Amino acid sequence: MWCPAYSLTIEREVDPRPYVRVRDADLVWFGRNVEASQCAAGATRALACDDPVMGTPPLLTAADVDAYRSSLSNWGRWGDDDERGCANHLRPEHTAAAAALVRRGRSVSCARTLATEPAIDNQRPVEHHMTGTVTEGYGADWFGIAPHGYATSHLDALCHIFWDGQLYGGRPADVVTAHGATKLGVHTLRDGIVARGVLLDIPAALGVDALEPGTAITVEDLEVAEARADVRVGTGDVLLVRTGRWRWREQHGPWDPREQLAGLHASCLPWLHEREIALLGSDGVSDVHPSHVVDVRLPIHTVGIVAMGLHLLDNLDLDALADACREEERAAFLLTVAPLILRGGTASPVNPIATL
Amino acid sequence: MWCPAYSLTIEREVDPRPYVRVRDADLVWFGRNVEASQCAAGATRALACDDPVMGTPPLLTAADVDAYRSSLSNWGRWGDDDERGCANHLRPEHTAAAAALVRRGRSVSCARTLATEPAIDNQRPVEHHMTGTVTEGYGADWFGIAPHGYATSHLDALCHIFWDGQLYGGRPADVVTAHGATKLGVHTLRDGIVARGVLLDIPAALGVDALEPGTAITVEDLEVAEARADVRVGTGDVLLVRTGRWRWREQHGPWDPREQLAGLHASCLPWLHEREIALLGSDGVSDVHPSHVVDVRLPIHTVGIVAMGLHLLDNLDLDALADACREEERAAFLLTVAPLILRGGTASPVNPIATL
Amino acid sequence: MWCPAYSLTIEREVDPRPYVRVRDADLVWFGRNVEASQCAAGATRALACDDPVMGTPPLLTAADVDAYRSSLSNWGRWGDDDERGCANHLRPEHTAAAAALVRRGRSVSCARTLATEPAIDNQRPVEHHMTGTVTEGYGADWFGIAPHGYATSHLDALCHIFWDGQLYGGRPADVVTAHGATKLGVHTLRDGIVARGVLLDIPAALGVDALEPGTAITVEDLEVAEARADVRVGTGDVLLVRTGRWRWREQHGPWDPREQLAGLHASCLPWLHEREIALLGSDGVSDVHPSHVVDVRLPIHTVGIVAMGLHLLDNLDLDALADACREEERAAFLLTVAPLILRGGTASPVNPIATL
Amino acid sequence: MWCPAYSLTIEREVDPRPYVRVRDADLVWFGRNVEASQCAAGATRALACDDPVMGTPPLLTAADVDAYRSSLSNWGRWGDDDERGCANHLRPEHTAAAAALVRRGRSVSCARTLATEPAIDNQRPVEHHMTGTVTEGYGADWFGIAPHGYATSHLDALCHIFWDGQLYGGRPADVVTAHGATKLGVHTLRDGIVARGVLLDIPAALGVDALEPGTAITVEDLEVAEARADVRVGTGDVLLVRTGRWRWREQHGPWDPREQLAGLHASCLPWLHEREIALLGSDGVSDVHPSHVVDVRLPIHTVGIVAMGLHLLDNLDLDALADACREEERAAFLLTVAPLILRGGTASPVNPIATL
Repeated sequence: MWCPAYSLTIEREVDPRPYVRVRDADLVWFGRNVEASQCAAGATRALACDDPVMGTPPLLTAADVDAYRSSLSNWGRWGDDDERGCANHLRPEHTAAAAALVRRGRSVSCARTLATEPAIDNQRPVEHHMTGTVTEGYGADWFGIAPHGYATSHLDALCHIFWDGQLYGGRPADVVTAHGATKLGVHTLRDGIVARGVLLDIPAALGVDALEPGTAITVEDLEVAEARADVRVGTGDVLLVRTGRWRWREQHGPWDPREQLAGLHASCLPWLHEREIALLGSDGVSDVHPSHVVDVRLPIHTVGIVAMGLHLLDNLDLDALADACREEERAAFLLTVAPLILRGGTASPVNPIATL
Repeated sequence: MWCPAYSLTIEREVDPRPYVRVRDADLVWFGRNVEASQCAAGATRALACDDPVMGTPPLLTAADVDAYRSSLSNWGRWGDDDERGCANHLRPEHTAAAAALVRRGRSVSCARTLATEPAIDNQRPVEHHMTGTVTEGYGADWFGIAPHGYATSHLDALCHIFWDGQLYGGRPADVVTAHGATKLGVHTLRDGIVARGVLLDIPAALGVDALEPGTAITVEDLEVAEARADVRVGTGDVLLVRTGRWRWREQHGPWDPREQLAGLHASCLPWLHEREIALLGSDGVSDVHPSHVVDVRLPIHTVGIVAMGLHLLDNLDLDALADACREEERAAFLLTVAPLILRGGTASPVNPIATL
Repeated sequence: MWCPAYSLTIEREVDPRPYVRVRDADLVWFGRNVEASQCAAGATRALACDDPVMGTPPLLTAADVDAYRSSLSNWGRWGDDDERGCANHLRPEHTAAAAALVRRGRSVSCARTLATEPAIDNQRPVEHHMTGTVTEGYGADWFGIAPHGYATSHLDALCHIFWDGQLYGGRPADVVTAHGATKLGVHTLRDGIVARGVLLDIPAALGVDALEPGTAITVEDLEVAEARADVRVGTGDVLLVRTGRWRWREQHGPWDPREQLAGLHASCLPWLHEREIALLGSDGVSDVHPSHVVDVRLPIHTVGIVAMGLHLLDNLDLDALADACREEERAAFLLTVAPLILRGGTASPVNPIATL
Repeated sequence: MWCPAYSLTIEREVDPRPYVRVRDADLVWFGRNVEASQCAAGATRALACDDPVMGTPPLLTAADVDAYRSSLSNWGRWGDDDERGCANHLRPEHTAAAAALVRRGRSVSCARTLATEPAIDNQRPVEHHMTGTVTEGYGADWFGIAPHGYATSHLDALCHIFWDGQLYGGRPADVVTAHGATKLGVHTLRDGIVARGVLLDIPAALGVDALEPGTAITVEDLEVAEARADVRVGTGDVLLVRTGRWRWREQHGPWDPREQLAGLHASCLPWLHEREIALLGSDGVSDVHPSHVVDVRLPIHTVGIVAMGLHLLDNLDLDALADACREEERAAFLLTVAPLILRGGTASPVNPIATL
């Protein structure tokens, strides 16, 4: 049962049906105004998702996530000075092989139109101001953008997330100053990512339009989607996980994604590590909200960015790509991610282009 | 002889040597504070460029440029509602053929680092503000950007330039309101341009590091560069013309590009039209400054954007691409241009990625 | 009965009690997305405000408001080039007399703290970014502000409102370009307004904490408040009308002020004109929402700014001033309004200071 | 001899004439790009200011300035939680007495028009964008402003300057976070400063139009100006020191104020402390540039703000006020400073209004 934001109810209810999904973890909200006291420890929410295929996410604790810090760490793997992290998995031969995937020559955007109107899921709208119009005799403009959050399609730089005062590779947090990050800024990917993109369309694999907000995606789900699409995610790939977020929004209206958002459960982290992907993207923010791990709000961001050095693509729009993949009967394609070169930036708005 | 900005001297001097380039057009300044009276009609500037290969730009008048309006017009060519202009030259088969050019899998940025410091060639620096740092426990930021001008690598939308109150396709100028352009915004290229890129490196063809600011490039120059690179610019290509602007800046320091900037002479317009390129880019702004055409400040922008519907890429950095092309011994490659989807926007900052 | 925004119900209900306030005008919403068709002509809303003192606003039509255009016009009154409008009512002798009102030497702000968080009544929050912090060794910052709307205490310039394509004094609307207003910008009040301020505290006069959103204030209400405060609004005064908006918000939470906001009914306009005030301010936006006049959304803004040349102070916070006036047993004081000098600006955020 | 910016020459030259001003301190530049190595230790610059009245600034060292830290400290003077500093000197009776100074009722701005164009003395212009124009049917706008620097008339908050990791009252520097200052923000002066203003017009006292950039003002100069104006700066006053900066700029064009700017010599600090002023303002930034104290770039800012808790008004325009004072034959007046209430802000643009 879908609960719109602001009227979220937490019920302890266990559905006896064998395959029903039970999200039995203590719910933890994301957001700066959320207190630990809001975590109703022991609460259980049963959702009537009687689909037999979705995996049940294993119970994970903060200690488990903490253990990933060392077991999944890539610190030092590409040298002590490395600032590219998992982007190192992408080697020129992967790029060349990805280009060879282009058949039809059809290009599709994976980005949303920049959102300039405030909404419950767009707390900091892009400001777009015209500085030349009919009255000046030419068109010109300015825009101001804070790419993070839940509205703008963007690439997270490795300086975005800290863990116990450290960034990827062990840099101290004070490399992130009010004049920009002196290490791990988004400019380190200045030459872009040109790679094989793989779309795992989870709702399509489940036969639904969109995942309900808050749905946790498991390794099992990823592998079901792989099997359905006859593709295997591998070294140097950009993995794009579609949850159907925007289709859900079309049908149900906007809600507060900080409270409920479909995404990957933390237990997917070892799988992401093993598959050696170069980049991870989603139409959400990769992390499921709530995280289903007590006291850990953003395990994918935290372990992914800090321990693994995995850049993330947040708030993509994968609906047109899903349509194109279905029409072309494929799930792998050439993908180009071209961040703006903002020295010391923590993110860049991007428009990743898939070419099939 | 190179004259730094603000001490520009206009000399009437004709060099008797047979091949010396004489820029004998009346000099016209660009910029909103420039009056017609500043156009020293009849002035001649002789430059000691004793290279025998550069073409002499033909004398063009405003009437000649005006005639291009009809002779080079693409209005209606792709339907009355067309908003893509020359981007229509790029068809899926061109995209697929471009992808097949990738051999090594080497990607190179064609953009400058966003320029956040004021300079004579950066009157409106990008504002970059951090909203999360070591004191907040995460990295986050905001930036404000006015992409036009002479500092930011950007894609000009077709709503950028008006001609006698009209835009491409005959739209009236009042489609460009203070709330954005209701037609021809940069969002019309939302799926990006994935095409064959061709680099014509003019200074390399001439055996120099960089063209002197103000140098007008002619059709002859373009064809010399084509011959040298063993490439022919054709339908659906993105043509990138390198002038060596940033190398010149490294050697001579910044100057006011509104006064002097190497670029294409207006007489290249029929050639650009005939070659059916999809997009035109440069490390300058494609237009040479001054334009060498009395009373016409920006013939490439005006005829290109308004009559032809040709999107432009301004202020690229093509130095790394030139190096890569030289190393890989080629001048054609896969190029991806991925503008941000800003509805009604007049431009987008971009980071075009060449893949060789 | 107070109806929260978004669940506004329009009822035709006439309360038989003798003094009950019936807002029987056709309700007209304010806001750019509101169509004339949304005006439920003939609808009547009865509110259970059983206060016997509030006046019943007379029925006004668009034709009545239109007639004010000439009957209340100040065009030409202070010369054809005048850009100060009613601020001309304030003469040096008024300023000197106002200064003589200071007794205790107590200063009170009439402004809200700049609102940096989004809310239903703050669609365009002030952006406040730090550019120097502990990591830089000094404090510095930047802010971006769009003063109009319903959140920021600001002074409306005379170029803010058009009427049939004209501004105050008959200037054509095209003086307001995308590069600023060439006439009637906020800079015309660069030397500030130092005047007698008079607070008319309507809820206090009625014995309530705050007016219900949507309450229309009438001439009768203003005069009751005058009598209660033993003051008479006169030539050169700055009239501040308190509705108790922020106290209501403390008690009931935020709502959409575009739908319902207490303020002056259009029938107050002749009174404002006759009293020759220099400036009008309120904790709302002076106009009541809905306006109670079919097809006229903002009669106070329209007639006041365009016909009379009356600058407005919107979204003030008059609660502390009301407290101070009560404690000092007075309603008149020295008031200083000091707009930022933004050439061609349509508004300035202000912090008017009352000194008692 | 006036040296334009960028061609500053440092000469060791001692003028033998008895009254010639010798600025014999080691010159220290201000600005973030300035290295200690640029301080030509021992260099002496002799200026041909053969006016007999200006005082010679005493030689001060960093140790002397450091000693002011304790001798002039106001820490704890108004309680441990005090956030108003010297503004505490202003008591209601001072405000009332100041209001009584108003005679003519003439108001004069002390602010510059907000500077929206880049210049050597305006590295971060105010961005002013129109969001409503003739094409929308109303006037509306937005502006972005970084008040510090050398162009905008602004009030420095006490959180602006740190000294050895501390702010006024001993707060640690980490109260200034990327989300604003949690202490000593500009909002602490929300009720404004309504006080006696005293203008000391130094060039007028010397019989010149404007002080040469770089001129250090001494206690002797201040007292000469007091005597000439027949006024004595005292408790609770806002002292405004005019250097004639903008008149100089009109005559000589813009220059880099970070290199040379007339202002108070550090030796004025004990005098400012003893006089118990509430606020200090200038048409420069109060500090003379260079400071004439080796290794101390901004002694007035540092001692004034951190030790004394003295808010500063920078970059005022005092020319109109000087004219008015001359015409009205007075140097003291009512002054109202009304900062915007920006919580945690380090400054506010202001338009102080003098009323005579």
